[in-house]
Amino acid sequence: MLVRVHAYAAPAAGEPLAPTVIKRRDVGPNDVLIEIRYAGICHSDIHNVSGDWGPRPFPLVPGHEIVGTVAEVGAAVTRHRPGDLVGVGCMVDSCGACVNCRNGDEQYCLDGMVLTYAGIDRDGTVTQGGYSTHIVVNADFVLSIPDGMDPAAATPLLCAGITSYSPLRRWGAGPGKKVAVVGLGGLGHLAVKLGHAMGAEVTVLSQSLKKREDGLRLGADHYHATGDPGTFEQLAGRFDLVVSTVSASVDLDAYLGLLAVDGTLVHVGAPGEPLSLDVFSLINGRRSLVGSMIGGIAETQEMLDFCAARGIGADIELIPADRINEAYERVLASDVRYRFVIDAATLR
Amino acid sequence: MLVRVHAYAAPAAGEPLAPTVIKRRDVGPNDVLIEIRYAGICHSDIHNVSGDWGPRPFPLVPGHEIVGTVAEVGAAVTRHRPGDLVGVGCMVDSCGACVNCRNGDEQYCLDGMVLTYAGIDRDGTVTQGGYSTHIVVNADFVLSIPDGMDPAAATPLLCAGITSYSPLRRWGAGPGKKVAVVGLGGLGHLAVKLGHAMGAEVTVLSQSLKKREDGLRLGADHYHATGDPGTFEQLAGRFDLVVSTVSASVDLDAYLGLLAVDGTLVHVGAPGEPLSLDVFSLINGRRSLVGSMIGGIAETQEMLDFCAARGIGADIELIPADRINEAYERVLASDVRYRFVIDAATLR
Repeated sequence: MLVRVHAYAAPAAGEPLAPTVIKRRDVGPNDVLIEIRYAGICHSDIHNVSGDWGPRPFPLVPGHEIVGTVAEVGAAVTRHRPGDLVGVGCMVDSCGACVNCRNGDEQYCLDGMVLTYAGIDRDGTVTQGGYSTHIVVNADFVLSIPDGMDPAAATPLLCAGITSYSPLRRWGAGPGKKVAVVGLGGLGHLAVKLGHAMGAEVTVLSQSLKKREDGLRLGADHYHATGDPGTFEQLAGRFDLVVSTVSASVDLDAYLGLLAVDGTLVHVGAPGEPLSLDVFSLINGRRSLVGSMIGGIAETQEMLDFCAARGIGADIELIPADRINEAYERVLASDVRYRFVIDAATLR
Repeated sequence: MLVRVHAYAAPAAGEPLAPTVIKRRDVGPNDVLIEIRYAGICHSDIHNVSGDWGPRPFPLVPGHEIVGTVAEVGAAVTRHRPGDLVGVGCMVDSCGACVNCRNGDEQYCLDGMVLTYAGIDRDGTVTQGGYSTHIVVNADFVLSIPDGMDPAAATPLLCAGITSYSPLRRWGAGPGKKVAVVGLGGLGHLAVKLGHAMGAEVTVLSQSLKKREDGLRLGADHYHATGDPGTFEQLAGRFDLVVSTVSASVDLDAYLGLLAVDGTLVHVGAPGEPLSLDVFSLINGRRSLVGSMIGGIAETQEMLDFCAARGIGADIELIPADRINEAYERVLASDVRYRFVIDAATLR
């Protein structure tokens, strides 16, 4: 038996999203049926529906930042109960057996994780995302939203939050460490909050000083404009960790020059075109250039618990479903502080 | 008082090396006068005298792989005594006070290390390297060659050895780890010996299978040709660590594809031109691209002790000084197994 639910879908690549009805699978023994309350709008949603990232199955319901209430659980599910506030991020399944899954790195599953939308589910169907009223997800990929969190502000943590948290933790953001965050958008504003909460000295590197007040309010200790060439000279060799959240093309050598010996430049934003790299930028100072993609399920839960304990949520703008297309335009214009979240009640 | 010593120098960029006489400074309180026995020929010597790496002071005596006998020590020197067998590598001084020097990373001295040749010494003179009969060096930059080592075979350890050893150690080569060495030259053949001695499973990736027997004899467990496109498919996701010793332009994305999750591609060879990099090659698998330059003084001593304990030296071809120019031609043609070492007795 399939459940028919309301959703917003892109009918074809590049077309505006519109209301539709989709089917969700019946709740299996290991599944959780979630009544969605909020869905975040991630920049990658726009890349996917616009066709930037290659062909996708259409019609397509985006959305991989999901918070809702458990409506029903399968017979074998013990971790979640009806009424629980839960979240779903960028993936809804993985093989569970490969070395990466066993290490808690389901996002690097050797069989390929099942993406929350535009993925091929293990039953062969195409997955559809969070811009809808309900979703059915394998219980192992359902996160618990800790008590006391604002559910709407918690929603962007499921992608933007873990994407920032994981590299900050892995590459040692903490007391005595100097961390720079490149770009103050959906990812960047959470990287600033998280880096600050971990105890690091945080510097924002943004194109201009336009959002400086915001940056300092979010927890940054310093704020510099990358549009000012003096910035790279002034800050040369300064940082232990630089987290680049931008997906525009960047001058890798310039950013590597900001690192101290053994420093790390981590890319979580992914420029669409190949970049140029002078290997001497790495050899001089034994510097590392790395990439990071979201985080595993256990680490995502750890991030949610960390945020709950420190009162961290995203700065959001809550919108009704009929403003999704307008919101996409504004994301493309960098006109959002700092994440749009759809009120799923307006999808019905 | 200055000491006049025999040497081989390049009179100008791109010109053949010829016999000459140079001056060495008087032995200061912290200095060691070394009677040189052997000097290795490093590929970077050729880059320097050819002018590939920009303008250099001429006439120039290359050589930063030096082994000899202590002839005299300054009044304040306690670590070395006349008659000791000692070595000098790529640097002969540093500020000693900056954070990197204090951390034992003199090669990343914030004031700049003093290179063994073509550097500006702390007294303002231009340093001249090891293709000579004697050298005067700050005792803190003089290494002890452990008893029982073959001094000629130990000579290339001072640059090629530490350049390979440091990243292997830092990025965890050891039992249970799969390490690939790209290029089987002066650096590569030592990386194979060292990686094997550390207990790692070592694979050589060379353009062809021409040196396969050598590679296996040196300690490699596997040997593949990078000229065969099937190699990159067959070995995808296989390695924890890939050490690239080549200075030719390489396809970074292809080599990154050989790494497992959290794997590291370290460049110790430095291609002269910027390379192209798709950031997704890093994000997919949380991979690291890093660079490494020689090693600190304490680490170089650790490497020498490690090699002495395991009977590791370079495979060398000992030549008289009048064959230096011919040896350069052969290095450029990759026709050396695996390092030329000059017998300094022939410089007189």
